[in-house]
Amino acid sequence: MMQIQTQGFSQQGSSGKEEAFEASWKKALQGDFANIDLLRSTLPAVQERAAQVRNQFKDSVFVGIGGSFWTPFALQTYFGEGAAHRLHFLDQPNSLYVNQILKRISDNSKVHFTFVSKSGSTLETVALYSALKSLESQWGYDLNSQSTVICSPGNGVLQTWSQDKQIPQLEIPLGVGGRFSAFSAVGTFPLLLLNRSVEDFFAGAEKARSEKAHIESLCKYSLSSFENNFWITQLWTYSQSLMPVAQWWMQLWSESLAKKNGVRVSTPMVCCGPRDHHSTFQQLMEGEKDKAIFVLQDIGREREHLSLDPLLAESLGASAVDWDLENILQASVEGFCGALESRDIPVLKMALDFSKLSAWGEFLMSWQLAIAQMGHYLGVNPFDQPGVETGKILARQYLKSMKSKES
Amino acid sequence: MMQIQTQGFSQQGSSGKEEAFEASWKKALQGDFANIDLLRSTLPAVQERAAQVRNQFKDSVFVGIGGSFWTPFALQTYFGEGAAHRLHFLDQPNSLYVNQILKRISDNSKVHFTFVSKSGSTLETVALYSALKSLESQWGYDLNSQSTVICSPGNGVLQTWSQDKQIPQLEIPLGVGGRFSAFSAVGTFPLLLLNRSVEDFFAGAEKARSEKAHIESLCKYSLSSFENNFWITQLWTYSQSLMPVAQWWMQLWSESLAKKNGVRVSTPMVCCGPRDHHSTFQQLMEGEKDKAIFVLQDIGREREHLSLDPLLAESLGASAVDWDLENILQASVEGFCGALESRDIPVLKMALDFSKLSAWGEFLMSWQLAIAQMGHYLGVNPFDQPGVETGKILARQYLKSMKSKES
Repeated sequence: MMQIQTQGFSQQGSSGKEEAFEASWKKALQGDFANIDLLRSTLPAVQERAAQVRNQFKDSVFVGIGGSFWTPFALQTYFGEGAAHRLHFLDQPNSLYVNQILKRISDNSKVHFTFVSKSGSTLETVALYSALKSLESQWGYDLNSQSTVICSPGNGVLQTWSQDKQIPQLEIPLGVGGRFSAFSAVGTFPLLLLNRSVEDFFAGAEKARSEKAHIESLCKYSLSSFENNFWITQLWTYSQSLMPVAQWWMQLWSESLAKKNGVRVSTPMVCCGPRDHHSTFQQLMEGEKDKAIFVLQDIGREREHLSLDPLLAESLGASAVDWDLENILQASVEGFCGALESRDIPVLKMALDFSKLSAWGEFLMSWQLAIAQMGHYLGVNPFDQPGVETGKILARQYLKSMKSKES
Repeated sequence: MMQIQTQGFSQQGSSGKEEAFEASWKKALQGDFANIDLLRSTLPAVQERAAQVRNQFKDSVFVGIGGSFWTPFALQTYFGEGAAHRLHFLDQPNSLYVNQILKRISDNSKVHFTFVSKSGSTLETVALYSALKSLESQWGYDLNSQSTVICSPGNGVLQTWSQDKQIPQLEIPLGVGGRFSAFSAVGTFPLLLLNRSVEDFFAGAEKARSEKAHIESLCKYSLSSFENNFWITQLWTYSQSLMPVAQWWMQLWSESLAKKNGVRVSTPMVCCGPRDHHSTFQQLMEGEKDKAIFVLQDIGREREHLSLDPLLAESLGASAVDWDLENILQASVEGFCGALESRDIPVLKMALDFSKLSAWGEFLMSWQLAIAQMGHYLGVNPFDQPGVETGKILARQYLKSMKSKES
């Protein structure tokens, strides 16, 4: 279960507007992304396909970007080491990476590709599909018989291909947005390929729905930070293995809350301690006080404990010789939070046992709910991202202009 | 050679204070970190030790954090694939990672450890040294005969060990700060282990010293962004391979410029396109206009060009079939910069051919000089980091209190 501990803001977050805050909570709960029955209904097809893939293939390459990338990549980063079915990822259109990934596959007749795109027509994903298609004969795989497509119903490139060639297709329910899709096939398919428990994952999601007070803490801390002009929100993890889930959080926050007609919200960024104690920490302590801090601690990750040579204790002028490496990590966290407290910098600490899938379910659903609730409360649509359209249009124009230059 | 292109701010950066700006440039040039003769004088010892290590060992584990970590890690990320001598990194005190790294070593009699710490007593580095010391008999290596120490003269744990046991020691000149140490053994030793040219690396550094106008562009753009209340500075790379050098830039900026008695400076953060087009880009386009943008493009990385199946062109309603994957990446950059321009968001684009070591030398030295110059100009000491002391003291107190609890 997620433990939350706050220092800093009194939680004025939504004071005087409790009714609106309550209404936004109810609205968040009603989102399709949080509809456990709806999401569970997608499971049987995912389970069936995952069983086939695990049976037939040794490696899976996930092709997708943004919301289609972070959930599977975060799960792989944490649970992938030593898994029987190996997951690989392609999100960037870059020939070097494509070749690097393909070189890692030992048997090209046993590699499976998962194409993930809610719309079925994301530029980067379709470009990677086209590149992989071109490489078929060179590498000796056959996309038509070695793929799965994950998308919403529609007429995108991927859905059309899937229908034409009977590629197995797993559905993201139409009302579930790409970055809110952790509990659709986007998250459950990789989990099942890694032979992990989707039941625990869903149990965590259900727990999040029932922990209204937890989500209220996350929201009110965040809203307070805006009211107090803290325009940067840093999420500090103390484990490299959690950096991708921190990035997942960052895109969820950034794309969902920052809208043209909305109120000003902070810019999220992710940091990794103690590594970044030697980077942005100096600025946190002596620069402008414009940052609110989340700390994400994995209290279950410490399955291995390496003891330390007495030399370290001696060098610190202490006599203890029974420290292990995790005590040093814990000391870093304590030093960090203590230093922030000495400067009155607000901190909200979240601690979970990420070695359990229920913690993943709880963390992901808690933040999906918190971001949706904040979006509703602030009067913006948390599920769209109209601001990125200009860039997409210009990118497509650039590609078309290349054509006319050469023709 | 670095190409720089700016859109946005008129370069008022230091208007009316040209004399002070000029003086800060001269002062920056005089820093030990930029003293090519001094740095070159450290080379023979590095070359000799690197030759021994390459001859005797197959793998090197680099142990260090912060400034001692980013330069070697950035070089390894870009140039390490397929190198005869393999580099591995430990910067976080975490038992899981230590075990993961040690498992990757095929022959423990042929693994070499490089301990990097300017002071010789960095907590995380000494803790990792102590953990590796404890594991000696279990894994079958011998630190005393399989190590190199990189530090400044002093009486830290690492220097003392090096003197007691005749561990080969490479020197970081005393006046060269940890995060400004790219051209000391911190950068040259890993380069030589990877069998790359330090001559080209130094040629790039010399080029940077002679490109006063380039560095002026970097400084004035940055100073203008502060004057115009852009309190976040994002460095966007379009290659995962450059993310570590972007992180190097972030720590250099953050620790050097943000000081208690200095003027307010922006908080740096790093982004990776097009991946983060599906994350923070929405906020850039529709959120508060508080971000100035650097774009870092690798114009030499595209050594591999995968062609695309015509399907992609068709799906975009275009008839060209001769695009390759790098055109898609370029289209992403164009779409991104065009979208920013449409919103009057300032952008400074840096393009280099990072496949050449001279580009690395030029980029790293240019930014070391630019940050030093800005620090001098803003009246702060760019070489210290007093703000992190509280955290260190509290971490050590925590460790000592653990002892007393258990004794």
